[in-house]
Amino acid sequence: MTDTTDRTRLGGPVNPSNGRLRPLGPDELRITGGFWGEKQELNATSIIGHCLTWMERIGWIGNFDRAAEGTVADRHDGIEFVDSEVYKLLEAMAWELGRSDRPDLEATYAQLVARVAAAQEPDGYLHTSFGRAGQRPRYSDLEWGHELYCFGHLFQAAVARLRGGHDDLLVEVARRLADHVYVEFGPDGRDAICGHPEIETALVELGRALGEPRYLELARILVERRGRRRLKTNLFQGSEYFLDDQPVRQAGHLRGHAVRAMYLASGAVDVAAEFGDDELLTAVERQWESTVARRTYITGGVGAHHQNEEFGTDYELPADRAYAETCAAIGSVMLSWRLLLQTGDRKYADLIERTLYNAVLVSPREDGKAFYYANTLHQRVRGSVPREEELSERAEASLRAPWFEVSCCPTNVARTLASVGSYVATADAGGVQIHQFADAQLSTVLDGGTAVSVEMQAGGYPFEGAILLRAESTEEVAIDVRMPAWADGGRVEFDGAEVPVQNGYAVVRARFSPDRPIRIELPTGPRLAYPAAGIDAVRGTVAVERGPLVLCAESTELPDGFDVDAIRLHETEGIVATENGARVTVTLVGDAPSPWPYRPDGVEAVDRTGVPLELTPYFRWANSGPSTMRVFLPRAL
Amino acid sequence: MTDTTDRTRLGGPVNPSNGRLRPLGPDELRITGGFWGEKQELNATSIIGHCLTWMERIGWIGNFDRAAEGTVADRHDGIEFVDSEVYKLLEAMAWELGRSDRPDLEATYAQLVARVAAAQEPDGYLHTSFGRAGQRPRYSDLEWGHELYCFGHLFQAAVARLRGGHDDLLVEVARRLADHVYVEFGPDGRDAICGHPEIETALVELGRALGEPRYLELARILVERRGRRRLKTNLFQGSEYFLDDQPVRQAGHLRGHAVRAMYLASGAVDVAAEFGDDELLTAVERQWESTVARRTYITGGVGAHHQNEEFGTDYELPADRAYAETCAAIGSVMLSWRLLLQTGDRKYADLIERTLYNAVLVSPREDGKAFYYANTLHQRVRGSVPREEELSERAEASLRAPWFEVSCCPTNVARTLASVGSYVATADAGGVQIHQFADAQLSTVLDGGTAVSVEMQAGGYPFEGAILLRAESTEEVAIDVRMPAWADGGRVEFDGAEVPVQNGYAVVRARFSPDRPIRIELPTGPRLAYPAAGIDAVRGTVAVERGPLVLCAESTELPDGFDVDAIRLHETEGIVATENGARVTVTLVGDAPSPWPYRPDGVEAVDRTGVPLELTPYFRWANSGPSTMRVFLPRAL
Repeated sequence: MTDTTDRTRLGGPVNPSNGRLRPLGPDELRITGGFWGEKQELNATSIIGHCLTWMERIGWIGNFDRAAEGTVADRHDGIEFVDSEVYKLLEAMAWELGRSDRPDLEATYAQLVARVAAAQEPDGYLHTSFGRAGQRPRYSDLEWGHELYCFGHLFQAAVARLRGGHDDLLVEVARRLADHVYVEFGPDGRDAICGHPEIETALVELGRALGEPRYLELARILVERRGRRRLKTNLFQGSEYFLDDQPVRQAGHLRGHAVRAMYLASGAVDVAAEFGDDELLTAVERQWESTVARRTYITGGVGAHHQNEEFGTDYELPADRAYAETCAAIGSVMLSWRLLLQTGDRKYADLIERTLYNAVLVSPREDGKAFYYANTLHQRVRGSVPREEELSERAEASLRAPWFEVSCCPTNVARTLASVGSYVATADAGGVQIHQFADAQLSTVLDGGTAVSVEMQAGGYPFEGAILLRAESTEEVAIDVRMPAWADGGRVEFDGAEVPVQNGYAVVRARFSPDRPIRIELPTGPRLAYPAAGIDAVRGTVAVERGPLVLCAESTELPDGFDVDAIRLHETEGIVATENGARVTVTLVGDAPSPWPYRPDGVEAVDRTGVPLELTPYFRWANSGPSTMRVFLPRAL
Repeated sequence: MTDTTDRTRLGGPVNPSNGRLRPLGPDELRITGGFWGEKQELNATSIIGHCLTWMERIGWIGNFDRAAEGTVADRHDGIEFVDSEVYKLLEAMAWELGRSDRPDLEATYAQLVARVAAAQEPDGYLHTSFGRAGQRPRYSDLEWGHELYCFGHLFQAAVARLRGGHDDLLVEVARRLADHVYVEFGPDGRDAICGHPEIETALVELGRALGEPRYLELARILVERRGRRRLKTNLFQGSEYFLDDQPVRQAGHLRGHAVRAMYLASGAVDVAAEFGDDELLTAVERQWESTVARRTYITGGVGAHHQNEEFGTDYELPADRAYAETCAAIGSVMLSWRLLLQTGDRKYADLIERTLYNAVLVSPREDGKAFYYANTLHQRVRGSVPREEELSERAEASLRAPWFEVSCCPTNVARTLASVGSYVATADAGGVQIHQFADAQLSTVLDGGTAVSVEMQAGGYPFEGAILLRAESTEEVAIDVRMPAWADGGRVEFDGAEVPVQNGYAVVRARFSPDRPIRIELPTGPRLAYPAAGIDAVRGTVAVERGPLVLCAESTELPDGFDVDAIRLHETEGIVATENGARVTVTLVGDAPSPWPYRPDGVEAVDRTGVPLELTPYFRWANSGPSTMRVFLPRAL
């Protein structure tokens, strides 16, 4: 095990060579408690162990042992890309080890890495489903085999280890595998791509972390090869599904399989950053903009269709059957973060906040032992309770499930929570930028040599809006504080004066000392969000938000005998903040079933009026048994 | 070729031994012209030939030749159930030959039957995808192989031939195949079912037509075997998909794959009719009722999900991405017809009318050479034009396509149009019942020996509502005329007096003569249909109907620069009938794209008010190039 202080080997999950903002690594910023501290603790003490236990029990880790022993062709557990779940867990563990000192976890990590490493073949190839006698040949099913996809997740796990300050066995495994892939798919290799993007962004990061230009070059080639309709399509999955219908730099919007789209776009930004490819960067910015304007749920979730896990067309955003896969939300955070680092534009930080608090956090159950894969915004029927010892279908609409046949989401949540501190702040030559609010300790040295530290006390955020920054700097520097787009009336004070907001950030310039705090006051009271008229599926409804949180109505809060579909909101009658949500007034309409539901008159049977109803944070729904739920509340007209 | 006048061998596609009403065969009722006459002519002169040409060109018919030659294991064209398309075409041809005298079609039919018959194996088995060296074994993939499903369609084709008055080669093929299936799957055969129901209803009908109780018994067994969760499920298709989650007689609603559900329910009614199983009949009636009340589109279409072609949950009926497969609509007509024959309840005839005019008729293009598979009620984007010589994906949202990889719908349309006269009228001991309006000639002998004939002149129906019946009978009989549920204010006159309506039918009793016509006047002017509040996806909208037709707004009728999503309907400003549709007044809202579509205020940018807009029949949309379309019009508030 080698400690390293090489500058290129630190930083968070993303560490571009060029860009407007510089990310901060776990050595520079750590979350110290509060809301996100609790989530990280849940991850460390529950989610990571849950993932490990499950994958041990159902043989997904055992695949590596059997691969090492030469018996995996006889028995391979799970679908073709279960290797990637082990790698995402290793990534989560690595970030967690970079954050906390846990010898037991370090030992578990080292053992798991050793089992993975033992399965690597002499030429560097590493995949438990392909290439051995009795298995399909390597690279014989690029559309569906997910080989390069799995490699990508291994690379990201290795990067997490490097960024935690260690250059040891997994990094060596990754290096050998990446060298193999470069030979196989590089300039002199086969002219092909993987059905599921992921390796692109991972190769860039591994290249950055190891200072290896070949990996960057291979990532560039793989991004550029996309869009030539070479991946074999079938009855259900066309070129669009694979993002192989048009080159990244020509596409006007994100489309196809949402997770694939987000991972590919992330890789494209990484490539654009490394090669100074402004055209490519601009193309992805354009795609992000149109996606956010017309293909994104209020939670930040993306991918409306269950069929193919795809985006819908513009404004096709049904609340019920919203697919909004957890992994797609995580992919969206990955993409927005890369664009924020390149441009410094607040809108990317705004979407990250919205997506993390709603579309990502809704996935894990409060105890961290069950997850949503798809995240509907309207649950019409009480789901069944998944059995705790059974694999669930990947996206059944029900309560959170402990594990899935395709189980990409739990490990993705684990690695995201373990590294969530990365998204809090950045630096540039002139100072630091606070993008997200959390109890955190920041300490960095700017490029000119000025040391800056900031202690952020986020208090009751996201439920309350008073945030305090105590900073210290050796010279005059700027601290930029994001004023969220939702925070109408929010203010930042320094030395008793309100700080003006420029381009969405309140910029405070000073030689800071802890006795001169920056005080942030954000209005976290409830507010209404009317969907654009184009979103047909939620016409005539309104959502209620509070700070960065989307609220929802859950049947558990309703009088007996009523369900969420009976609610008609009186939005003009005052909505008051409660401890964690909001209280609204509703009319409840009676259930008036008709033999034919299209009638000459549209009158509803009002049952009770003036009923108070407590709305709660969306991310917390379905934590107390089967219920029905809706985010968009029909307006009483 | 043997002509037969055996009573048991005539009748329409369905000929129950017991039931409230007796169907009329092509020998008793024929459509003579008008709206449905034109559709039958289109079928005879375009659709049938189109299907034949395509299946010849792409080798689906050739599969039978290669099966006969012993080479089909080397080359089989199309997916596992393409045999069934040939059978459905044979069924369409047989009904058409029963309706019209066309020696050229008779010759084509005979040649095609000979090619199918040549592929039958000595023990009666007949399927081009299974059982030969180099193919999978017979019945080795009951979930997906569709063997029994294909057999069922062959049986229905044979029944159509028998009901056309011929007991020849295809009937013999069917008899041998059915005997084989009885051995394989009957009381002493394997305890198994087919993944796709269809053979159940077909076996009953073949048993009825041939007077063979073993076929009825096998159908009964196959219906009863369903619901034991024995079909192997996978990641995406569970027991519900296959309707194998619970026994038919216990289920409360239709669910799973919509076509499978409709075919199975049809078979269950057939079995209930033959075995006097009232519990089973009542179960299906209950399922029909809950499906119509909560899982049916205004067009009569069913099956909301693209994913798995399944029903949604109650009230989950999005207009955009409505799957509403053509075959599911046809299955719905099949089911409603069987229930109508059993019960005589008008509601079944009402749904048949709605479904035929809207959900079925929308499928074929005006020239009969392209089809919709899925039938959305809201097309947001102009589709691309499918190439005329290319197979399309089965359900891509675009213009109608000439043929599909899975092409169940075109041949299903063909057999339905060829036999659509079956649905017009029935008889019982006391008289005849007119369920549907069409130019038609009816001539039958009631059970007591009374001869009745009716000439129906439907005039401009469905656009105009004046219908004339000239009847003749040797004794006093009753003629019941359906008063559609939508026809508020409609009236029936006989001998100058208004006829009272009982249970939805105006009952006229007389010894009829042509000089005493029955005059029917139905109000076919435009009317509004408000969706029930539970159907979230169309909240705040209203549809416009005219007679049995659902109307729609199509972008081709809008001013330049506007699309259907800009429409806001002023429903109180008067809606006037036009020749084939209705003229409404709308406001057009401007396209005001926002970078984030969930806003603190819900104001729309009005562009033009008082704009007249022509609505046209839904079934005619997209006949003049790519367009956008919507059935449910947002209300101007």
